Amino acid sequence: MVRKTAGLSRNREISISEFFEKNRHILGFDSPAKALFMTVKEALDNSLDACEEHSILPDIEVTLEKVAQDEYTATILDNGPGVPPLEVQSVFGKLLYGSRFHAMRQSRGQQGIGITAAVLYGQISTGRHAVVVTKEETDDVAYRFEISIDITRNEGIIHKREATVWDRDHGTSVSVTLRSRYQVGRQSVFEYLKETSVANPHMDLKFRDPDGKVFHFPRSVKVAPKPSVPVKPHPLGLELGEIQQMASSSEEKDMKHFLMNSFNRVSANVASEILEKSRVSGELDPAELTTAQIKGLMAAFREVKLLPPPLDCLSPLGQEFIRKGLRSNYEEQHPSFYSRPVLRSPSVYNGNPFQVEAGIVFGGDLPSDEQVKIVRFVNKVPLLFQQGACAITKAIADMDWRHFGLDQKQGSGIPFGPMIVMVHILGTKIPYTSESKEAIAGVGELSSEITAALRYVARDVRRFLNKKEKRKQINEKFKLIRDLIPSISEKVSALMEMPAPPIDPVISKIANVVFVTEEYRVEEETAEVKCTVYNYTRAPRAIVIYPDPPVGEVDGLQSYDTGTIEPSHSATFEYRVKGVSKNYDGADYYFTGIDPVYVQGAEPLPADWGMGGVTVEEVSE
Amino acid sequence: MVRKTAGLSRNREISISEFFEKNRHILGFDSPAKALFMTVKEALDNSLDACEEHSILPDIEVTLEKVAQDEYTATILDNGPGVPPLEVQSVFGKLLYGSRFHAMRQSRGQQGIGITAAVLYGQISTGRHAVVVTKEETDDVAYRFEISIDITRNEGIIHKREATVWDRDHGTSVSVTLRSRYQVGRQSVFEYLKETSVANPHMDLKFRDPDGKVFHFPRSVKVAPKPSVPVKPHPLGLELGEIQQMASSSEEKDMKHFLMNSFNRVSANVASEILEKSRVSGELDPAELTTAQIKGLMAAFREVKLLPPPLDCLSPLGQEFIRKGLRSNYEEQHPSFYSRPVLRSPSVYNGNPFQVEAGIVFGGDLPSDEQVKIVRFVNKVPLLFQQGACAITKAIADMDWRHFGLDQKQGSGIPFGPMIVMVHILGTKIPYTSESKEAIAGVGELSSEITAALRYVARDVRRFLNKKEKRKQINEKFKLIRDLIPSISEKVSALMEMPAPPIDPVISKIANVVFVTEEYRVEEETAEVKCTVYNYTRAPRAIVIYPDPPVGEVDGLQSYDTGTIEPSHSATFEYRVKGVSKNYDGADYYFTGIDPVYVQGAEPLPADWGMGGVTVEEVSE
Repeated sequence: MVRKTAGLSRNREISISEFFEKNRHILGFDSPAKALFMTVKEALDNSLDACEEHSILPDIEVTLEKVAQDEYTATILDNGPGVPPLEVQSVFGKLLYGSRFHAMRQSRGQQGIGITAAVLYGQISTGRHAVVVTKEETDDVAYRFEISIDITRNEGIIHKREATVWDRDHGTSVSVTLRSRYQVGRQSVFEYLKETSVANPHMDLKFRDPDGKVFHFPRSVKVAPKPSVPVKPHPLGLELGEIQQMASSSEEKDMKHFLMNSFNRVSANVASEILEKSRVSGELDPAELTTAQIKGLMAAFREVKLLPPPLDCLSPLGQEFIRKGLRSNYEEQHPSFYSRPVLRSPSVYNGNPFQVEAGIVFGGDLPSDEQVKIVRFVNKVPLLFQQGACAITKAIADMDWRHFGLDQKQGSGIPFGPMIVMVHILGTKIPYTSESKEAIAGVGELSSEITAALRYVARDVRRFLNKKEKRKQINEKFKLIRDLIPSISEKVSALMEMPAPPIDPVISKIANVVFVTEEYRVEEETAEVKCTVYNYTRAPRAIVIYPDPPVGEVDGLQSYDTGTIEPSHSATFEYRVKGVSKNYDGADYYFTGIDPVYVQGAEPLPADWGMGGVTVEEVSE
Repeated sequence: MVRKTAGLSRNREISISEFFEKNRHILGFDSPAKALFMTVKEALDNSLDACEEHSILPDIEVTLEKVAQDEYTATILDNGPGVPPLEVQSVFGKLLYGSRFHAMRQSRGQQGIGITAAVLYGQISTGRHAVVVTKEETDDVAYRFEISIDITRNEGIIHKREATVWDRDHGTSVSVTLRSRYQVGRQSVFEYLKETSVANPHMDLKFRDPDGKVFHFPRSVKVAPKPSVPVKPHPLGLELGEIQQMASSSEEKDMKHFLMNSFNRVSANVASEILEKSRVSGELDPAELTTAQIKGLMAAFREVKLLPPPLDCLSPLGQEFIRKGLRSNYEEQHPSFYSRPVLRSPSVYNGNPFQVEAGIVFGGDLPSDEQVKIVRFVNKVPLLFQQGACAITKAIADMDWRHFGLDQKQGSGIPFGPMIVMVHILGTKIPYTSESKEAIAGVGELSSEITAALRYVARDVRRFLNKKEKRKQINEKFKLIRDLIPSISEKVSALMEMPAPPIDPVISKIANVVFVTEEYRVEEETAEVKCTVYNYTRAPRAIVIYPDPPVGEVDGLQSYDTGTIEPSHSATFEYRVKGVSKNYDGADYYFTGIDPVYVQGAEPLPADWGMGGVTVEEVSE
């Protein structure tokens, strides 16, 4: 028996503020301790984005004040461009309002939710209004606002607005009072500030904790990063409905211009080619595109071989940063090996370019009986929560690390070993698993790019673990040839009562190999290295050697060209590696200029060495 | 140098549809295969909720049709109450619109997002409109709608509406065409339907797969579950701002009635007590409450000892279901042990009552070298994705299972062993980690309740693992007393040339114990059990014995009262356990009526035995 609904529906519209009031954990406000963390994070992310867009070197002050039992006021003060006074009500009082959602550029914020969520949580948990002070350079005075949120209408309410004198040219200060708890350690405000400061060396940050203790994270790079460049969507990866939406709302009059002006990497020529292949007229009004025509265009996008998105819209941490950042963070554990960091070429997800960077720290005093430590960054923001939900973690757990010399039950799950894996995802639109931006969803291309980056650095670990074993074998072979053969020759000659033949051609005949050998001694964190290349082949050989130490920095040498080495002759070069520990155990060697079948003790230079895809850090400073 | 913003703001409002168009993975539409799964799930959840609210026994038909390469039409047809024609535009075309968000009752849907998300994804990925046919019992005809979504305005667009004749009294059919892929196995549509059918035995479900193969999951329970009861929020767990919101929008004229009528478990007496303790006048207009007064009320809520929320608003799967459900799903692996399922008492999260149920299957043919399998249900909906992000998984990983006899590195992480852990969370408002409702956030009380439930069932596993060892020890002691002492007595008497004394009082004096012993033999899945209770104490004893086999069902016996057993006498009872494997290895025994210090071979009956908190299933059928 059906009860009559009798026209009286219980259906109602739900305001986005109501939704998040009831689901505040989705915004990251799951617990008092985390609420404080989220508030600082959202405000600081906004400050850094605003400064970056305006090429300002950020000076930030974060202050936490205890105002009652389990009640703190968090104040984040920046020297950013300021918020236009008419915008304050919506920027801080309306969820889903912002400047970065509709722009395709790499930024920390992207949803127009974060800081309003903090204001909302403050209001829900303490009933207190947020206080915003802001000044634009063009204004003579600053404005101070007391603001709260009308939850059923998702609108800011300004309770008080007053002009005020401020001792700075421009900037914004946000204060939110919220029910919270201050804690230290992993997943704390302090840890977040520390990691953020590492990833943003152009920021000067002062942090006053609830006890009044002040911590200073000084600026270590005096140049503002160049602002990320907004880009148009790349045709590959867009869904049919998205192209439909773009076409129907386009201001272009015809398809040719629509293609050229609405998409990245579509030139006039490419546009013509696409139109021809899809049999769509260049004159057609984009608003009149049919579903079938869009399907044709999408097929053509794949046929015409579009260039990948341009690099300059993305701003990676950089090889040098990853190596140095990892080193400065983990130096106290004396790791015995840092992988060469990898920066993958940009790829596309839903028309949005993204890239993956990764690095590994291994060995030393890192604990060998614990799960490896995972360090996650997205658009230079450290992710401290929801590790289990993250595509980065999943990519690590899905790889069989036993092939790379690590302990892992059944070849899946987070491996055990003395290792730190660092992954940085950067892109114009990041697929976070929820509005709290704590983890990344494993959408197709993203997961495979992360896996590719991991494989690259993992191979480095395997190489490192194999190296000692291999070097031992080569040394044995070399010893055999250098010592044993002449000694056999002498003894045989004596037995036969014949003069010993010239031994070098014999060695060359037997060995037919170019040996690359290395000796070193370490003094005061510097390794003095002597590398000798023996030509035990029957022809003159020339080879270029590229040393690649796993830790430390090569001092003043990138490669060494031996020139021609005659058979049975050798060439020697010396160099220094700075910043190594006493346990330094030699470099890898790569080579070019000679058929790899002749070489022992070095490996062919990878094709992407020193190029965009994969580089060692540049040694010139 | 600051670029002038010059009053021209790039800030814009973001429609919730735009937000989810760009973040469709948050709604669970991460990949083509998953999109199909989500569409079926959201529609089926709605159907089951609607039927349950109207006490209809659900007849559901799910049809998947391949319409092009990577393009499927999913149709979900139900016999629910139908959707009022005027509501169709918003129910299927507007995100954040629904009947269940503002109601506090246990339901599958709660956000007003799911089915609209499926329509949105269909539109984005194929450009096709959704088709809805719906009929209410009060209408003579059905109505057929073609509908899409205006993404920038978050509004449904009706492209076509026509009256149509339909051969059913009432119901709704939703068809969405979407880019997708059909797959089988774990995390598939089929798996979801199967598990849903297990948890909703009152549903009759037909599923036609893309090859036209039809699967029928028949109804096994012929009674519709009683509709869940809407409740008011419980005062404990509400935030200050939420009470403020309730007070300012209340229609009550004074505080006394506001308290009595807006909250659960606040009677007139309790309201007076709260007002007195918080020194708030009962005459005060709720709209005039100050922040300080709300804080006072919140303190009073904690002082007056409010009853927990009522049970009848929640509908658990039930002990019997869990035991039978687990058994029918995993019988083929012949597990050697099923834990007694546990249903925790209701608890409160943000004013919302919730409960946790759990059960464990152990041993048999389950793989012992893999991670334990985790089976998650929320409000009778199986969760197949995002296991790593879920508070259930985290609670399992955070427990040290080594104490319970399982293999677990370092005492954390998902343990390894032949075990399936099943957890069901039920409540009026579930804190999902994202709008896709694939995992639960670990908000305070919830995690601790899950952990408590896990500990209960884990103790059962430990008991099971200890049992054989313990029984062996008791048998040895029993043998000693029964055999060895008389034999010593005889030999000593012979040596001393004295007549042997009556031995039973001696045994009683030495042992001073009541032994509970068990013998059994298994034939055709039935164990014939003989249980003997020996009174080797110096006084008459009466004891009530409760057998509790880890698998199988006791046939016709719940407890056995021995009556008075004289010293050195025994009492015997027999019973059968049905549905056991050949590896059956005996029951646990519990007792009442005697000081536990005297008993060996049985344990005191837990206080919550057979009551709400913890029960074995009832054997009468």
